Amino acid sequence: MVSMIIKNINILTMNKDKDIIENGVLVIKDNLIFDIGDKTLLAKYSCDNIIDGKNGIMIPGMINTHTHTSMVVFRSLADDVQDRLKRYLFPLEKMLVDKELVYLGAKYGIMEMLLGGVTTFTDMYYYEDQVARAAKEFGIRGVLGETIVDFPSPDSNEPYGGLEYSKWFIEKWIDDKLITPAVAPHAIYTNDTEALQKTAELSKKYNIPMMMHVAEMDYEFEECEKKYNMTPVEYLDSIGVLSERFISAHSILVTEKDIELLNKKSVGISHNMGANSKGAKGVAPISAMYKKNMKIGLGTDGPMSGNTLDILTQMPLVGKIHKLFNQDRSIFPAKEILELATIGGARVLNLDHEIGSIEIGKKADLVLFETDSINMQPIYDFYSVLVYSSNPGNVDTVIVDGEILVKNKKLFQEKNNPEKIIENLKSIKNKILETANKL
Amino acid sequence: MVSMIIKNINILTMNKDKDIIENGVLVIKDNLIFDIGDKTLLAKYSCDNIIDGKNGIMIPGMINTHTHTSMVVFRSLADDVQDRLKRYLFPLEKMLVDKELVYLGAKYGIMEMLLGGVTTFTDMYYYEDQVARAAKEFGIRGVLGETIVDFPSPDSNEPYGGLEYSKWFIEKWIDDKLITPAVAPHAIYTNDTEALQKTAELSKKYNIPMMMHVAEMDYEFEECEKKYNMTPVEYLDSIGVLSERFISAHSILVTEKDIELLNKKSVGISHNMGANSKGAKGVAPISAMYKKNMKIGLGTDGPMSGNTLDILTQMPLVGKIHKLFNQDRSIFPAKEILELATIGGARVLNLDHEIGSIEIGKKADLVLFETDSINMQPIYDFYSVLVYSSNPGNVDTVIVDGEILVKNKKLFQEKNNPEKIIENLKSIKNKILETANKL
Ligand SMILES: [Zn+2]
Ligand SMILES: [Zn+2]
Repeated sequence: MVSMIIKNINILTMNKDKDIIENGVLVIKDNLIFDIGDKTLLAKYSCDNIIDGKNGIMIPGMINTHTHTSMVVFRSLADDVQDRLKRYLFPLEKMLVDKELVYLGAKYGIMEMLLGGVTTFTDMYYYEDQVARAAKEFGIRGVLGETIVDFPSPDSNEPYGGLEYSKWFIEKWIDDKLITPAVAPHAIYTNDTEALQKTAELSKKYNIPMMMHVAEMDYEFEECEKKYNMTPVEYLDSIGVLSERFISAHSILVTEKDIELLNKKSVGISHNMGANSKGAKGVAPISAMYKKNMKIGLGTDGPMSGNTLDILTQMPLVGKIHKLFNQDRSIFPAKEILELATIGGARVLNLDHEIGSIEIGKKADLVLFETDSINMQPIYDFYSVLVYSSNPGNVDTVIVDGEILVKNKKLFQEKNNPEKIIENLKSIKNKILETANKL
Repeated sequence: MVSMIIKNINILTMNKDKDIIENGVLVIKDNLIFDIGDKTLLAKYSCDNIIDGKNGIMIPGMINTHTHTSMVVFRSLADDVQDRLKRYLFPLEKMLVDKELVYLGAKYGIMEMLLGGVTTFTDMYYYEDQVARAAKEFGIRGVLGETIVDFPSPDSNEPYGGLEYSKWFIEKWIDDKLITPAVAPHAIYTNDTEALQKTAELSKKYNIPMMMHVAEMDYEFEECEKKYNMTPVEYLDSIGVLSERFISAHSILVTEKDIELLNKKSVGISHNMGANSKGAKGVAPISAMYKKNMKIGLGTDGPMSGNTLDILTQMPLVGKIHKLFNQDRSIFPAKEILELATIGGARVLNLDHEIGSIEIGKKADLVLFETDSINMQPIYDFYSVLVYSSNPGNVDTVIVDGEILVKNKKLFQEKNNPEKIIENLKSIKNKILETANKL
């Protein structure tokens, strides 16, 4: 007996041939995609849980390859100002000694991601165990790493406290079916060589991702040049920490040689176009990387940088800014953008054998867009409609690991009490403002 | 007796001082804003039509300063291809000999604009009378001009048929309270000097806008250089058609001298960042123009170029791309972006004495955003929330000229039968595909 059948949908499989099944049927058994095909499947399987997709568009769940979810508690504070990281973000984050604030932010951000069609998120922050706790409660898939920095952090009185935390965190979550623990040194300007090598060892020992901000900041690049006479990527390579497990967030200030190094080591690239443009940081050369078939996914970065946590609003930005910068309107057509948002992200996380496309045997991580709204018609090209016209308000149903988490545009599982979470977020506003006003 | 009171709203007035009234009240009498202030207004006026804004954010209606609404019937066709205008757009538009197709597209696009918070749109197309007809039926404000080109157009067998059409169209609509007729020569590469001067005369005679694509295409710039040894703007100035009534759409390929000319003649600039980036055309230097206090508004361009017709999705693009191009994250803060979307657009249309801000005596063109959705919280800065986090799905109520046109995120006036319009749009798909496939 299968678990669920969804009929009357247009399936963008995002498989190798990017097959599209119009007026298709998708069959789920337990947490897996059991079958996909045309209407004849309806006669083949019996199931008392048949969902009418109402001619919507079904895509693989979108994957956020880089964020700091809990930062959402500070969202819309200190936008549009210079030197924000050191002037506002780091000081504000001192408030996170209260781990319940991390937990609240994680729950809130996860709700936003689910409603926007994100089924897997990649997170690095403090008290990462609280993020994992929130993820489990909602049933979203997560690749999560405790941030490691060379100064006392909200959850550690000692520099590099994140290293010990990581060991405990990894052991706790290593066998979870939804959570993949990871190691997450913040950046080269907040970690020394020894710390980076230690985290790389952990990554290797447990065969888990190592994620890090790389080649994002101009001062990062300049200091690295001065100190080592190397680019950040060259330096990371020279100390032996690059590998196919490495997730390089941003990767803006990279040379052709850097790209070659990243490619040779099969490093995954998390491209954060929204945050990078809002922060005036530059355009990562992902078109060159894409041509080399490198692993590239999309990320939002933290909600003080990119504000929204969904991947859908990244898609038009990625297309438009790269067309503009490459002076080529045919570059990154909508189909390739959706590829980055789904299977591309899965490749970055080395989870492409499990998620990222709609194929038999993969995990049932799925997003259904309704096509009844005015902005979703006419449909001459499914990819164009999604990338250039849709918005998170068009996400109708979201399924993670075979479970329906969003239905009719609302969080489906009342047990998590979304209203209460929203109220809690609003109620801490004054406390946060007090802190912010002192900065 | 006043007509309507809206309470419990946060009013972003967009007046000269950009005053914000938190927990405010807005009073409408007939089609005008009669009073704005705090809760004490509730005792001052009696009214049986009191709306609870539920702590939402009220802004002036957004203004689309450049589009070709009816083109929405072709949306998502031929995206991401080179030389689109001549290869696809012009040929497809031959289908528009059927004026009912223009009318259908206009109705459809107007619904999308209203749902997205656009209360005034600026349109140039063929059979513009059908666009005006649709606008009147929905009650949206429009600045509308028949396109004038030097080749037979869908509604004319002769070159420049649009000129005669314009005269008739202007006389028909000149006294309408919602429709402002305009003249609309397509571009310098589709009109000769004489035609441009004739349209400028009409603009002067009736004191109506003259709108045109200017300095958008590289071939436009090159041909103008070759033919006249002038930039497009210099040429337009030399033939005497620039004035405070002139609306220059795009204005990408402009020199410093061009900007000075446009400024001296008080020309309005319609900035179409979404379409310009998707088309890889370049970034209009509006930051230099903004510093000179020039009239700048936002536009979507036609839905085959920019896809969406709402102004809301333009706002983050404008901010992010200009920050990126100017390498300055503090440029165009959210507040200024909302200014461009509202009062800036009103200035471009020379309608800023009537619309574009929430001030006593102005037309009641208003948009209310709900703040209950996850993506709309927390709110530390109203402008940031609107520009960086909101999407058209957050538009709750839209009022034009004192009439509620959208309520609870749905078109309020059933008389126009939105469902039927959507069905009609879907039903012409095959006919359009047949044409497209021959191209
Ligand atoms: Zn980050
Ligand atoms: Zn145009």
